Amino acid sequence: MRVEFRLSGSGGQGLLLAGITLAEAAIHAGKNAVQTQSYGPEARGGSSKAEVVISDEEIDYPKATDPDFLLALTNDAYKTYGPMMAKGLIITDTSVTLDPAIKARTVALPILASAAEKVGKKVVANMVALGVLGGLSGVAPKEILKKAVVARVPKGTDELNVKALEVGLELALQSGMAPK
Amino acid sequence: MRVEFRLSGSGGQGLLLAGITLAEAAIHAGKNAVQTQSYGPEARGGSSKAEVVISDEEIDYPKATDPDFLLALTNDAYKTYGPMMAKGLIITDTSVTLDPAIKARTVALPILASAAEKVGKKVVANMVALGVLGGLSGVAPKEILKKAVVARVPKGTDELNVKALEVGLELALQSGMAPK
Repeated sequence: MRVEFRLSGSGGQGLLLAGITLAEAAIHAGKNAVQTQSYGPEARGGSSKAEVVISDEEIDYPKATDPDFLLALTNDAYKTYGPMMAKGLIITDTSVTLDPAIKARTVALPILASAAEKVGKKVVANMVALGVLGGLSGVAPKEILKKAVVARVPKGTDELNVKALEVGLELALQSGMAPK
Repeated sequence: MRVEFRLSGSGGQGLLLAGITLAEAAIHAGKNAVQTQSYGPEARGGSSKAEVVISDEEIDYPKATDPDFLLALTNDAYKTYGPMMAKGLIITDTSVTLDPAIKARTVALPILASAAEKVGKKVVANMVALGVLGGLSGVAPKEILKKAVVARVPKGTDELNVKALEVGLELALQSGMAPK
């Protein structure tokens, strides 16, 4: 069992923190994990990509080579990483314009809007995204995801971030694509 | 120019944040960077290892294979990663017991004590360590390191963390091993 995640969007969306928290939750669930953040010309352009590989075995190669899950919160991210997707599932924000030339299975979920409207803070979209990825992949149960969020977010913001996580888990459930 | 860093210590020391900030400073200095955090049985045991690779070129392999700098803040970290060091420099905290069987060049600096005594907060030892690594490697100038720290640490803690960075830069300078 090796599950590869690529989280992409714009620089201010906190996807690195979402990736770190996902990796830490996996550890608490008894798995191995590697989290990678690559910076370069693309980072200077304002886009962001974080990767997480989770496995029951030791992880030799730490990068996602054929992601099982691509999160794409912006059009740029979708257009950059969508075409590389083969077997995996693309999860876009509903604000992203889908391109029929990108053939991988795709589900569009209101991640940014849910953060703003259901939690009341756009800035927690990263934790909504974490809930979506956690829910769709099943790499860690809800209680362990919660614990990982509380351990990682700034003190005083726990409640807001846990609420965002729960909204994301709910989105995953409603998509009908979460494991039973 | 490819520079590899391995930051090791105990789980609560915030070395992941130090690694992220170092990578982000390198980007602001016009370089490429990859930051990796590997979790596994060792993470569950309470130890922590973050890696950063910085290069002028694109980075194909994101892990440190022959680190130029190993930071080891605890005895466990020193004993685990010290023996793997070849060409690089080991930077230990002065609380670490050196082992003559570990042959790589080694400098012991009062990182933990400086955080507690000169900054007044043990918890900023990670930013002291960042200053040491930034100063010894020269991958980013002081002003860019400062900017990266301010961008990454929780609001309201900027001043404390920048002070810790400066204490670390000073330690690097005093060691006599910083580039001119």
